Amino acid sequence: MKKTAISIMSILMLAALPVQAQQQRNASVPSFADAVEDFRPNLTNQPGKQYPMVNSQGAVRVQLRAPGATSVQLDLGRRYEMTKDENGVWTGTSAPQDVGFHYYQLIVDGTAMPDPGTVSFFGAGRWGSGIEIPSEDMDFWQVKDVPQGSIVEKYYWSKATQSMRHCYVYLPNEYDRNPGKKYPVLYLQHGNAENEYGWSVQGHTGQIMDNLIAQKKAVPFIIVMDYGQGQNIHLVGEYAPEPQPQQQGGRGASNDAFQVVLMTDIIPMIEKEFRVYTDAAHRGMAGLSMGGGQTRRITLANPTKFGYVGMFSGGTISPEDVQGAEGFQKTAKLVFMSSGSKENPRVMEAADALNKMGVKAVGYISEGTAHEWHTWRRSLYEFAQLIFK
Amino acid sequence: MKKTAISIMSILMLAALPVQAQQQRNASVPSFADAVEDFRPNLTNQPGKQYPMVNSQGAVRVQLRAPGATSVQLDLGRRYEMTKDENGVWTGTSAPQDVGFHYYQLIVDGTAMPDPGTVSFFGAGRWGSGIEIPSEDMDFWQVKDVPQGSIVEKYYWSKATQSMRHCYVYLPNEYDRNPGKKYPVLYLQHGNAENEYGWSVQGHTGQIMDNLIAQKKAVPFIIVMDYGQGQNIHLVGEYAPEPQPQQQGGRGASNDAFQVVLMTDIIPMIEKEFRVYTDAAHRGMAGLSMGGGQTRRITLANPTKFGYVGMFSGGTISPEDVQGAEGFQKTAKLVFMSSGSKENPRVMEAADALNKMGVKAVGYISEGTAHEWHTWRRSLYEFAQLIFK
Repeated sequence: MKKTAISIMSILMLAALPVQAQQQRNASVPSFADAVEDFRPNLTNQPGKQYPMVNSQGAVRVQLRAPGATSVQLDLGRRYEMTKDENGVWTGTSAPQDVGFHYYQLIVDGTAMPDPGTVSFFGAGRWGSGIEIPSEDMDFWQVKDVPQGSIVEKYYWSKATQSMRHCYVYLPNEYDRNPGKKYPVLYLQHGNAENEYGWSVQGHTGQIMDNLIAQKKAVPFIIVMDYGQGQNIHLVGEYAPEPQPQQQGGRGASNDAFQVVLMTDIIPMIEKEFRVYTDAAHRGMAGLSMGGGQTRRITLANPTKFGYVGMFSGGTISPEDVQGAEGFQKTAKLVFMSSGSKENPRVMEAADALNKMGVKAVGYISEGTAHEWHTWRRSLYEFAQLIFK
Repeated sequence: MKKTAISIMSILMLAALPVQAQQQRNASVPSFADAVEDFRPNLTNQPGKQYPMVNSQGAVRVQLRAPGATSVQLDLGRRYEMTKDENGVWTGTSAPQDVGFHYYQLIVDGTAMPDPGTVSFFGAGRWGSGIEIPSEDMDFWQVKDVPQGSIVEKYYWSKATQSMRHCYVYLPNEYDRNPGKKYPVLYLQHGNAENEYGWSVQGHTGQIMDNLIAQKKAVPFIIVMDYGQGQNIHLVGEYAPEPQPQQQGGRGASNDAFQVVLMTDIIPMIEKEFRVYTDAAHRGMAGLSMGGGQTRRITLANPTKFGYVGMFSGGTISPEDVQGAEGFQKTAKLVFMSSGSKENPRVMEAADALNKMGVKAVGYISEGTAHEWHTWRRSLYEFAQLIFK
């Protein structure tokens, strides 16, 4: 169990550090020289923008007009040197990237800036640029002419923070036409340094669910996407934690802060404002990376409250964890643990161990992806087909 | 009537040009020297960002770390020179700005870039920075602990464009709890080079409506915010316009394209997917700037379809217009025309002229504001109190 906890921590740390780590690693490499010249505009470009582009190898090409600059780099985790033409336009090309969605930025004379070519996404703690490397299976998250659900933006009062909070709720298409019907609900959390926009924007939750429901591969259910970055959740009054002088980096307290808000404010608000079942058999929680770690902690700490548990690149639950959480084994109808093939493949073994003790568990490996959004879109696609059935 | 048309065109042109016009006007002025040193972080900053800041005079101060740059400017329509300190941090301060929301950008060695300090807004044809100058009356659009409606993101199939389109719909808080009740609906359009996000994001439609409804100053109604930039709406098949070799700049065709989509796709979709009344007495249209011009054209061209007409900084409707649109006088329960006091105050005379002929009309002047979002927030706040009653 200690091993699992450490492995979760290292995943969390990796997710927390990309921008700072990049800024320390100032070493850059030349633009990718062997790019196939079939670049097309990136799918997340602002309207009318040709750049950034992506080619069939998954290489990224960016352009920026900056006649006065002496150095411009493309920073995709690794930094690629860009070169200037006679018109002051800088161009750079990355090596082939994994399929899926990546945050990135430009470095102009040492200053990080968003690429004005793409729309903004919240990741790495700031709104910035994103690039989409097309994948062979990307069809599952495209907007299609199927019955469309909706993504509902909702503010609500939080007793635990004494402030208005903000979340997004996916409602299946049929929701409004069945005023007498109740729905199961999944609480779905983002990763570290991301926010409540992540799942519906870069995650394409709405499209994944609409397409699955249209194909009858998933039953209609509601998804709640809230903000879970514990360091920024300030509990007050009776909900405030006891001061702990020697907290391990504050992260424990952080996750606890989201747990308090989830149990005190979010779940009661959802069960009041939306037509949802309120028993564990119709309530699930899942999350990616840090959100998977939160799912693990919160479902184990509330072992009779969640029938479905999904951890996407967010660690594993062990037989010892289950034994230590009275009622979990009886309540949990499914524990789903996933990972990109380029990160931690232990999820399959972890699922085996749970199945052997009689807890139904599924492991899933996203082929060819790392600790990134395409892993998590695929994880949601798989998980959604297994739950509330 | 010709005069009105010309005046609308000039408003549209002004709205269309800010970025290009700025790029031609490269002349800059020094930072504002007489700023009161009570700057506070701007309300639309990214989490944790101190800059940009605004002071009690409405002056804007920005900072950017760019040690290698030789020139950095703050571009708020007028360009202000920024100065570099020994750490390579550039700072600049604008003259006092009008209250409300303004798009802006930074110019680094001649290259326009978004300020990494603020979140992104779509205006001037691109996602970029925005600054909020607090106003004395800003309370009306704040998020408060009142019953919260929701902003619903919705995709739908468009026959006229043979593609999926995307809109936002405001639903009042009580909507879900009254499955047997129907609601009036207002179609509310953005300005030129903006998009369907504008009204709910920089316009704060949801907060304005929730606060008004909580105070019983407005009746609950639904608001539909769609994308109306005609040049980017490509009608196909039977809906495609006849080719017109000598179109006046294409703008006429553009507005017509949105009209086709509104009447063919948007209104039928809303009336199918939401519980709304379908008669003119419960249907309104309004818009800002270009959206106001579209409202004028579309309601006059469909004179028995819209009971409420709102033009915010978007021109005026004259008695001659009404006489030329059979059925309009009988159908229109209210024509609302507004303007910032720093732009076109003729809206009061225009309302007088309509009232004299027996068409109920209201003119509204937003004091101290120009062709910008605070004028339009205030216009919605006023208009919403007058309609569907």
